[in-house]
Amino acid sequence: MKILEKTLNSIEPLSDEAMKIAWNRIDNLTKPIGSLGRLEEIAAKIAGITGKVFPVIKNKNIIIMCSDNGVVEENVTNNSQKITQIVTNNFTKDITGVSALCKFTGSTMTVVDIGVNYDFSNSLIINRKISYGTKNIVKGPAMDREQAIKAIEIGIEIVDKLAKEGVDILGTGEMGVGNTTTSAAVLSVLCSLSPEISCGRGSGITDAQLKCKIEAIEKAIKVNNPNKNDVIDVLSKVGGYDIAGLCGCFLGASKNRIPIVIDGFIASSAALCAYKLNPLCKDYMFASHLSAEPAAIHMLKEINLKPLLNLNMRLGEGSGCPLAFNIIEAAIFTMENMGTFETAKLDKREYIDIRKDTN
Amino acid sequence: MKILEKTLNSIEPLSDEAMKIAWNRIDNLTKPIGSLGRLEEIAAKIAGITGKVFPVIKNKNIIIMCSDNGVVEENVTNNSQKITQIVTNNFTKDITGVSALCKFTGSTMTVVDIGVNYDFSNSLIINRKISYGTKNIVKGPAMDREQAIKAIEIGIEIVDKLAKEGVDILGTGEMGVGNTTTSAAVLSVLCSLSPEISCGRGSGITDAQLKCKIEAIEKAIKVNNPNKNDVIDVLSKVGGYDIAGLCGCFLGASKNRIPIVIDGFIASSAALCAYKLNPLCKDYMFASHLSAEPAAIHMLKEINLKPLLNLNMRLGEGSGCPLAFNIIEAAIFTMENMGTFETAKLDKREYIDIRKDTN
Repeated sequence: MKILEKTLNSIEPLSDEAMKIAWNRIDNLTKPIGSLGRLEEIAAKIAGITGKVFPVIKNKNIIIMCSDNGVVEENVTNNSQKITQIVTNNFTKDITGVSALCKFTGSTMTVVDIGVNYDFSNSLIINRKISYGTKNIVKGPAMDREQAIKAIEIGIEIVDKLAKEGVDILGTGEMGVGNTTTSAAVLSVLCSLSPEISCGRGSGITDAQLKCKIEAIEKAIKVNNPNKNDVIDVLSKVGGYDIAGLCGCFLGASKNRIPIVIDGFIASSAALCAYKLNPLCKDYMFASHLSAEPAAIHMLKEINLKPLLNLNMRLGEGSGCPLAFNIIEAAIFTMENMGTFETAKLDKREYIDIRKDTN
Repeated sequence: MKILEKTLNSIEPLSDEAMKIAWNRIDNLTKPIGSLGRLEEIAAKIAGITGKVFPVIKNKNIIIMCSDNGVVEENVTNNSQKITQIVTNNFTKDITGVSALCKFTGSTMTVVDIGVNYDFSNSLIINRKISYGTKNIVKGPAMDREQAIKAIEIGIEIVDKLAKEGVDILGTGEMGVGNTTTSAAVLSVLCSLSPEISCGRGSGITDAQLKCKIEAIEKAIKVNNPNKNDVIDVLSKVGGYDIAGLCGCFLGASKNRIPIVIDGFIASSAALCAYKLNPLCKDYMFASHLSAEPAAIHMLKEINLKPLLNLNMRLGEGSGCPLAFNIIEAAIFTMENMGTFETAKLDKREYIDIRKDTN
C-alpha cells in the first residue's frame, strides 16, 4: 500500500512553463495559428509532461500485462483459456500483431505474467504472477483487496524500472481471455452503465454468448456489490490482474512524467481506474484509437480524451500504441522542424487565430 | 481532351485475384479474424490496386498543385494573395508543415505551378502555369472549359511521369489563397448542398467574412449556372486550377494503379470530381484525415470513404498525407510480418469471424 499511496501523492500537474514555451514556438511556425490541430496540442502536451521543448522520443516501450480470468467459466468468450498462455508466449517470438507493429515503429515490449494460469519457462516474460488467474466474479470477488493493490504496485514498479532505463514513451497492452468481460464490469460500476451498454462482442462471440456475458456482469455486480467510489474495491471484486496492473502503469508513468498511450477497451478501463484514483493522470495519457468494442467511447468520454485513430481495431495486445507513438513523434518533429514566420518571410498578421472559435 | 478521355477509359477495377490471395493470408494470421480492422482492409485494398501481395511502399510522393483564385476579391479570406506565391516557394525550402511531415516519413514532394499569379525563378517548381490565376467566379466562369480540361490533363501527365519514375504511393496537396471557397462551391453544386453547409472558416475568417464567402458562392452559382451532371462544367465555372489539377492526379493514379491519398477539404473536392467522372477511382483512394473544415465529411460521405485520422487539421498543403502513408505502410508490414496460425501453434477454430456482424 505504501508504494501506491506514495505514487498517488507524487503525481504533479503538467509544467505550465514548458507548455507556454512550446505554444510560443508553435504559434510562430509558418501556418495559420492552430491549423495543425491536434498535432500542435500533442506537442504542447508532451512539453508539459516532460518539461522539455521538444524532447526526442526514441526509447518506446509497450507494457503487456498478461493474466487469466475465472469468469471464463460463464460462457462469456469463444476462446479457450489456454489462448492466454500461448499468445503471452508468442509475444516473445515476435509473431503477434503488436510485435509486427512494434518492429515497424522501432518499439519494444515488456511482457509481464501478472497472473497467467501457466508456469512459463521463458526468460523474456517477467514473472510477477500473483496467482494462477482470478476467481470467477459471478461467484465472489476476483481477488482480495491486497492482491488488487499488489497488482497496481507491480504496474508502478515495472514503470519505475523502465523509467530508470530511460524509456521516453510507454504503451499499454494486455492478454487475458475473458478480459473484455471484466473491463465491461469495471466500466459498468464506475460509470453506472448497464451491462447491456458496457458489453460488446470482444474477440467475437455469438448472440447467445453475449447474453451470457451481460448476465455474468449483472450477477457479478449483484453478488459483490462493489463500491463505485472505491476503485480498489471495484478492481478487486469485478476486475482482473491485467486491468489493475495497467492501472498501476498509468499511475507510475504520471509519477515519472512519462507520456503513456492507451490501447483499446481493456487498457481504457485501466486508464479510467487510474483517472478515478488521481485525475491528474489524465494529462499524461494519450488515447491511440477508438476500439471497435462499442463501449470504448464511454470510457474515453469519462476521462475526456479523444482517440487519434479510427481503425475499427479490436485485437488488444497494445496494438494501437505503436501507430500512436508514430503520430506523437511526427507532431514533435514537425513543431521542431517547420520554419518560423521570420525564416519563411511571412507576415504573422496575415494569419488569424481561430482556435477559440473552432474548439 | 484526348488524354482525359483515354484516361477515363483506361481505369479498371481492383484485382479480385490479388485481393483474394491477400485476404487468405490476412485471415490466417494469428489474431481473431477481422480484429485488426481497417489495417486489414488497407492491406487488401493495396493488393487489389497494385496486384501485388504485399508490395513494398518505398517511393512516396505528394503532388502539390499551386494556383491563385480570382474570387479573393470578394473578401472571402484573411490571407493576402501573395501568400500563395510565398508558400509555393517555401515548399522548396523545406520549412512548411508538409515539408516537415514529409521529412519525418521519408516522403518527397512534387510542387506544380498550375496557375500562380507570379513568375517563379525556381527550378524546383514545375511550371505548368495555365494563366496567372483564375477569374472571379462571382462575375463569370473561373476559366474556359478548355482550361479546365488542360488542368485535369496536367494532373494526369504529372502522375504518368511519377509512375514511370517508380512512385509507389501518391499524396495530394495544394496551395492557393481562396481555394476553400472554390472547393465549397464545387461541393455545393455536385452534392446540391447550400453554401451555408458547404462553407467553413478556411484558414481563419471572421463572421462577416464567412457571410461574404457564403454570398460569393451563392452569386457564383447563380451567375454561372453550372450543370451538376457535367463535372468539367462545374470545375471551369466555380472551381480552380488546383482542384482540376488534383482531379487529374486522382484519375492518373487510378489509371496507373497507384494508391493515392486525399489530404483535406480542397483535395477532397478534387477527389469528388474524379469520382463523379469515373466512380472506379474511389477504389484507388485513401482518405487521410477528417479536416476541421466542417463540410469535409460531406465530400467523403459522397465518395463513401472513411478518414484514417482525426486530428482537427486544416492546414492543407497535403499535410495529412505523410501520416496516412505511415499507416498504410504499417498495415502492409503487419500483414506480411505477423505469424500464421500454423507458425503460432494456435487453432484457427478457436477464433470466430465477426466481421459480418460488426460491419
